[in-house]
Amino acid sequence: MNLKDYIRDIPDFPQPGILFRDITPLLRDAGAFNYTVDQIAQQCQGRDIDAIVAIESRGFLFGAPLACRMAKPFIPVRKQGKLPGETVSVEYSLEYGSNVMEMHLEDVSSGDRVLILDDVLATGGTLAAAAQLVEKAGGKVSSIGLVIELEALEGRKLLEGYDIFSLVQY
Amino acid sequence: MNLKDYIRDIPDFPQPGILFRDITPLLRDAGAFNYTVDQIAQQCQGRDIDAIVAIESRGFLFGAPLACRMAKPFIPVRKQGKLPGETVSVEYSLEYGSNVMEMHLEDVSSGDRVLILDDVLATGGTLAAAAQLVEKAGGKVSSIGLVIELEALEGRKLLEGYDIFSLVQY
Repeated sequence: MNLKDYIRDIPDFPQPGILFRDITPLLRDAGAFNYTVDQIAQQCQGRDIDAIVAIESRGFLFGAPLACRMAKPFIPVRKQGKLPGETVSVEYSLEYGSNVMEMHLEDVSSGDRVLILDDVLATGGTLAAAAQLVEKAGGKVSSIGLVIELEALEGRKLLEGYDIFSLVQY
Repeated sequence: MNLKDYIRDIPDFPQPGILFRDITPLLRDAGAFNYTVDQIAQQCQGRDIDAIVAIESRGFLFGAPLACRMAKPFIPVRKQGKLPGETVSVEYSLEYGSNVMEMHLEDVSSGDRVLILDDVLATGGTLAAAAQLVEKAGGKVSSIGLVIELEALEGRKLLEGYDIFSLVQY
């Protein structure tokens, strides 16, 4: 199965000059969605993973079924103010301004090895912030997993030193 | 298994006087998370469901594994401006102000019977808006499914006429 057949190109979204890779056709096809989760699970074999950390909100779409399938704890990384317990937080830069993401402190135990999962690797800013969160909470980043990698944006540069895998590259 | 053992009460969140039901302990326990998805799938047996519509972002946590397990199309309902294709949209009221949610028009075919899934039924405003979206796109709401129902808020009143199920009631 070629996952690119289920990813739609949308030019000029969310702003002029950006070519958006839309995964909603993949989500709508139960075979392709399950295949995607299977492929991520297969990448996790041979990697040492205690828990799945997924980034709100598109990361949840793959992280939740993956955690269920692998029978591993699921840990959400959310936007500021959404998690009700004691959190660790990281501020990270966007093109204009900045954002804060949070994780429940107790969700990660000291030394836990986690997979950080998101749908797309673009510039890597969000994933670098998520990796910082995991480390602030005392965990270790075993791997970073993506469905889609936008190679021209060179997100791996910002994530140097981490083990990264992606299913589809553009 | 009693799912309430995996739901944590957080008083005064997100504001004073609100008792928040936190599902993150459930997500962290792979057995409880899988049990929850199984229980929702069981509720879907005997109901006529062509697709799973889940509401961003906590609805994604249950809708995505459910769609994978049931091998049904997954359709996201998202906040305004997030979906890149042609959408239907609905404005709905919040305590202060209003919000807009959107769904891809092409995700629902005419006459499709969908399950709308979210984590919590509170006042029902969000779910009523999601039901409107489905109907605007030409679909039919087969059922509305929740992990948690806050009975004191009487959300069912706003959703009269719809078939509703919930796994846990407070």
